[in-house]
Parts: sequence; C-alpha cells; structure tokens
Amino acid sequence: MDIKSQVLNIAGKARGAANSLARLSSDIKNGALKTMADALVDQSGHLIEVNAKDLEQAEKLGLSRAMIDRLVLNEKTIAGIAKGLLDVAALPDPVGAVAKMWRRPNGLLVGRMRIPLGVIGFIYESRPNVTADAAALCLKSGNAVILRGGSEAIHSNRAIVQVLQEALQKTHIPEAAIQLIQTTDRQAVHEMLQLDEYIDLIIPRGGEDLIRAVVKDSKIPVIKHYKGVCHIFVDADADPEMAYTICMNAKVQRPGVCNAMETLLIHKNIAKEFLPTMAERFQEAGVTLKGCEKARKIVPGMEPANEDDWYAEYLDLVLAIRIVDSIDEAITHIEQYGSLHTESIITKDYANAQRFLNEVNSSTVLVNASTRFSDGFELGLGAEIGISTTKLHAFGPMGLEELTTTKFIIYGNGQVRT
Amino acid sequence: MDIKSQVLNIAGKARGAANSLARLSSDIKNGALKTMADALVDQSGHLIEVNAKDLEQAEKLGLSRAMIDRLVLNEKTIAGIAKGLLDVAALPDPVGAVAKMWRRPNGLLVGRMRIPLGVIGFIYESRPNVTADAAALCLKSGNAVILRGGSEAIHSNRAIVQVLQEALQKTHIPEAAIQLIQTTDRQAVHEMLQLDEYIDLIIPRGGEDLIRAVVKDSKIPVIKHYKGVCHIFVDADADPEMAYTICMNAKVQRPGVCNAMETLLIHKNIAKEFLPTMAERFQEAGVTLKGCEKARKIVPGMEPANEDDWYAEYLDLVLAIRIVDSIDEAITHIEQYGSLHTESIITKDYANAQRFLNEVNSSTVLVNASTRFSDGFELGLGAEIGISTTKLHAFGPMGLEELTTTKFIIYGNGQVRT
Repeated sequence: MDIKSQVLNIAGKARGAANSLARLSSDIKNGALKTMADALVDQSGHLIEVNAKDLEQAEKLGLSRAMIDRLVLNEKTIAGIAKGLLDVAALPDPVGAVAKMWRRPNGLLVGRMRIPLGVIGFIYESRPNVTADAAALCLKSGNAVILRGGSEAIHSNRAIVQVLQEALQKTHIPEAAIQLIQTTDRQAVHEMLQLDEYIDLIIPRGGEDLIRAVVKDSKIPVIKHYKGVCHIFVDADADPEMAYTICMNAKVQRPGVCNAMETLLIHKNIAKEFLPTMAERFQEAGVTLKGCEKARKIVPGMEPANEDDWYAEYLDLVLAIRIVDSIDEAITHIEQYGSLHTESIITKDYANAQRFLNEVNSSTVLVNASTRFSDGFELGLGAEIGISTTKLHAFGPMGLEELTTTKFIIYGNGQVRT
Repeated sequence: MDIKSQVLNIAGKARGAANSLARLSSDIKNGALKTMADALVDQSGHLIEVNAKDLEQAEKLGLSRAMIDRLVLNEKTIAGIAKGLLDVAALPDPVGAVAKMWRRPNGLLVGRMRIPLGVIGFIYESRPNVTADAAALCLKSGNAVILRGGSEAIHSNRAIVQVLQEALQKTHIPEAAIQLIQTTDRQAVHEMLQLDEYIDLIIPRGGEDLIRAVVKDSKIPVIKHYKGVCHIFVDADADPEMAYTICMNAKVQRPGVCNAMETLLIHKNIAKEFLPTMAERFQEAGVTLKGCEKARKIVPGMEPANEDDWYAEYLDLVLAIRIVDSIDEAITHIEQYGSLHTESIITKDYANAQRFLNEVNSSTVLVNASTRFSDGFELGLGAEIGISTTKLHAFGPMGLEELTTTKFIIYGNGQVRT
C-alpha cells in the first residue's frame, strides 16, 4: 500500500471506531487502562529488547546523550509508564458529565453534556513514554487516537502500541482506538494533515519548527504552543525574600521547560535594594544575566540585553532583566514581547495584584507564585496533554476536558416553536 | 492603497485595539451599545437614503424579490436593529466571569476567568442588520471585529458602520473596535484569511459554498456550519398527537432554516397507525413527501426516496420519510446521513429517551420537542452568533460565551515548585 492509502486506511478505521468509543462506560475504559498497564510490565523484557534497536540507531546517528537518555526503556521507565496509565484510570471521566442544566420559560430543561471530540491526531518527537500517555488520555476521554512518533523511537513505539492493542482486544475495545503510523516517511504526516473529514484535532508536541510546519500544512484544527517567554514582575513593594525564592525557582529549578522564567521585570523603586542580592544568587546558581542599561548600572557585571533578548526563549540558565518605571510599563512589555504563556507578579499591593490578574491576558497569570505552576498536574487538571498558547478551544494547560466538547441535551414534553 | 495593504491596515488597527477593548467595563460597553442604538434611529433618514442605492442596484441585477426584501432598511427595520443592540446591552457580560475556583493542596487558589478571543473576522452575505448585530455581539464580548459583508449591501453597510464608529468615538472607545472592509473585491477576503497573526477567529455566515470556500482558504480557525440535515425519530410508543404536532412544527413552521426537519424516521410498529394521518396533514400543508419502500406501501401516493434524499437539506416544503426496525437503526441512520446539527426523538419510553440523548452526538439532541428549538435565543444563550456543527471550541448554537476563552488565574502566597 502506498503511504497515502496507509494513512487513509488508519484514519478510516479510527473514524469508524469513534462512535463506539464515545459510548464506552468509565468502568470499561478504566479496566482497559489497567490491562494495558499490566501488559506493559509483563512484556517489559520484549520492550527493552526492541528499544535496544532504537538506542543502537541513536548512537550511530550521533544523537546527544540527553536525547538518548530520553529514548531509554528499562524496568524502571516501563514501570513509570504503567503507573501513568493507572493514574489516568483514576481520573474522573469527563464524558457524559453535565456541568449545568437550566429550565426555559416553556418548560424545556436544557443542559450541556460532555462528549469526545472523535479522532485525535498526535504528532510528537522522541520519548516513547508519550506514546502510552497520549493513548491513555485519548482512550479515557473516549477518543480514537492516531499516533505519529519520531523516527528515533519507531521500534519502541511499534512495540508499545502492539502491546496496548492486544490489551484492547482482551477488553473488547476496538483496536482502532489506538493506532500508530507505521512508516517514518514524512509524507505520512502531510497525508494525515489533509484528512479533515476523518480527524477532528491535531496536537503536535515538540520544537517550534515541528509545530510551525504542522500548522502550515494542516487542514485540521491544530492546538498549538510555539514557545513560553514567561515573565515575573517584581513590584515596588514585593516582599524581597519571597521574590528571591520565587524568581530562583522559576529560572533555575528546571530551566529547559516552557514555564521557566525567561525575563525578569523589576520596578525601579525596589531595583537598588532587590537586584544586587538577586543577581548574586543567580550567578551562584550559574545563571547568565543580560540586563537593560538601568539594570547594568546597578549590577555592572551583567551582559547587555538587546531587543532580541526580550523575545528570547532561552530554555537554559540565561535570564533577561529589565527595570520598569511602573506596573503599566511591565504590562506593556509583556504584551509586546510575551508569548501568551505564563506571567507572575510578586507584590504586597492589593490593587496591583488585581490589575495584573485582570489585565494580563496570558494563558496563566499568577500572583506571588512561581511560573513553574503552569502545568496540568499542578493546577489540578489531573493530567496534561499539552499547553495551548492560542485561544480557541483551549488556552493554557490542557487536561482531559480539553479533549471533549459539549452537546446540548434537551428534555421536553411536547414543546413546539410558535 | 492596494487591497492587501488596506486589509492589513484594518487588521493591524483591530489587533492594536484588542487589549484595551478587553479591559472595558460592562457599563462602558453597554453605554456604547445604547449610544449606537440611538444614533441608528437618529440617522435613519440618511440610512434609508443610502439603502436606496443598494435596492436600485439589486433591481438592476435582477435579484429575487425575497433577496431584495432582506436588503430593505426602513423606519421599522432600523428600529428593529436598534432594539437588537439594546437587547445585547441587557445580556450578562461574559468577560471577567470566573466560573469556578478551587484550592490546591499547596494553598494555591486556581480559577478560570473568561477573556475575549481578541479579533473576530465576520464574513457574511446580504442582510445589513447582520452588520450591527455582529458588531454589537463582538463589542459586548470585548472583541474587535472586522466585518466583510456582501456586495449587495455595501452602501448600507458602510453607512451603518460609520454611524456605529461615530457612536464609539462619543463614548471614547477606539473606532477600530468595529471596522468594515470597504472594498467589495473578493481578493480582500483572501487577504483577510491569511492574517493569522492578527485575527483569532473567522465566522462565516451564509450558504454552504461561501463557507467551504472560506474554510479552504483560511489560515485562521473557522467556526463553521455547513448544513442542517435534522431528523425526528418517532419511536414505537410515541404519543401520536404529540408526534403530529412536533413533526408539523419542525417541518412547516419555517422550512427554509437550518433547524427544520429534513428526514422523518418512524418505528415500524407505529408506522401503520401514525403515517397515514401524518402524511395527510403534511400534504394539506403543501409538503412533498419522499418515502422509502416500506413507507410507500403504507402511503402509496408518496414519491420514492433515493439515497441522495437521506443526505438532502431541502430547506423547503419537502420531507424524506423512512421506516426503521428499531431505535438502533434510527441512530445508525442519523450517524450515516446526518450533519451533526439537531435530532429529536418522540417517545414515552424512558430507556429509549435516555439512549437517544446519550448516544446521538449531534450538537443538539432533544426528547419530545421540535428541532426548531436549536437556536441561541430559544436555548437561553441570549443571542446567537451562529451555529457550529464542528466540535472544536463550540458545538451547536453559539452565544456571547463562545466569543470568549478562559485564562487560568492563580492567587498564591509565595509558593514554589519542589
């Protein structure tokens, strides 16, 4: 079969399975997730064996140690993946939930019931654990999923999906609930992105280049997240100790993730008191600081920040620092250079806290807390499928609910329109 | 200025206004809507004069009487448009509402606050009242709107938007909140659909061809509604009188709209009792009936229905009728031929009512009520911007809330991630 036919065949099967998946009870879905978790552990010997092929290939291709580490399957990582499936089983099922109902003057009782989106296309890079995670979240939310992983992990992904499909068979759920595009040819992605009659949503996970390429080519709606240029604004009357702790956490705890701080804005009235100690602590932690002119007058050792730095997502131990005259200037800076991801204000001032929360329209806005909380688990969504920095359908961390939509359900007793 | 520059200029101004529009209080927005309503009534003489140009052009082009009627502005229609603006002013403001907040174990208080989408592109045909309606709904929900009306109403649309912009000026709201693409050149639509950095959502309103063309060309998310092939299933133990009344209402009250019934499914066990009287009533009302073979054995006068009839959106006094063996066959028929718009079951059977509500995943599903209730006003949304038959972001009738999204707001007191 040519690639176009292969992809169409997979999409057709997914579409065909979607209606019956939408009707599965929570008990059956949770039972399947447990069976899947057990099967992965049972087959861990086989999975580790197959994974060796990906590792061998990665060594040949000269991938970085960090990338190779992310590919590894061993007893421990497989147990982690299995635990992830059990965690998803333990989450509340969004499907069938009715958030509210209301009575119309004519007696109609109207509600909005959650239903699955249908078929999700998941496009991602490297890590094989994403294969099982995404499959579990889509199954729990009643969706069929078409997985397209990176070529680095293709052997592992094929083996994992085979184990998951065997578990589905045992629990009498259509195998087409979880499918993997078997070829690593890039044409398959292109073909997938044209099938808007079959696939309801595309979720790409990976670098900005991957995501931009998917958006450009897709006829299907894409939930996207280009980058996270997250800001913290230390207000004039911030508690300095709180500000040191939060800023350090936001920059240093895990600098390579999208919710790490990239630019620190400091009110001019607190800058002389706050910045020297903050800079010292950052430098002790190995952070390279890039400051505006005013900041460099206070801490002369800093590199100068240029216009590009305000747009930069370093994903590294590098931080841009700017002194601002007011909360207005801080908000304007965020509007101009931000990525709509996550911003935090550190302040004791009630009015400024409220202004920041109301006026900054990024997907997550915090008062007196680290930007690192912008995460589905941390916010209490139970799981995270991704983070959206565009506003349609979902904005910010996405949980199971964001893989569903609502239909109107109406109980009548003979009403007609007049 | 060439067309590309014109459109870019408008889009740039809209984007620039979006942040300040998002912050307007409900009082200011409602005041502006009232000023706009007064201004339209004050300027009705001028509007009627300008409208005459569109009517003259329509006569020259030989448009149908029905189309010309929809173009007419007179004292009465202008009063109706002004009343529409006041109705929007009276609706609750979705912006700033926090549906729920929850406490995390670490003390963070997390909520989801409604915010505007930003910039809405509205593409529509003929009727000039849509110009004011769409402008009002976008303003109330804090969005900037770029209007692109049909060439038939271009003089009226220009005059209406000018009146609205003057009212905005009086109330110190940026004029760029409501803009009209001044040219009728089709290239302007194409240019508009490429500006995904400026426009957050495209809402097309009009025929299926217009909508398909917009979807095909757009880089911006489109909320779409191709057609409404709405079904009523008369179950074996439906109350016949209730079924007659509802079916008649759903087909005959306003056959040209998307929520009118297009196919009637009848359980075989009630068909002999129900169909002859139902057919007689429909025929008295001038409805042409097209039946399956079984239906034609009961009412021989019907035309035969072929495969195309099950897919047809007649938008006219024509109805397809099919006898089914079971509720399963009814649901399968709806899945195969339906458009995900609106379906209703008429039944006294509790279990079948629940099955139909749970298993039919169209955007509106009713028990014992007319499909004609699938409408934003009728369902209590207060207004209707459109109906979506695709699942992302909105599914079914859309009100003001569907022109917003939510951001996460988080109140902390020093929390960091560990």
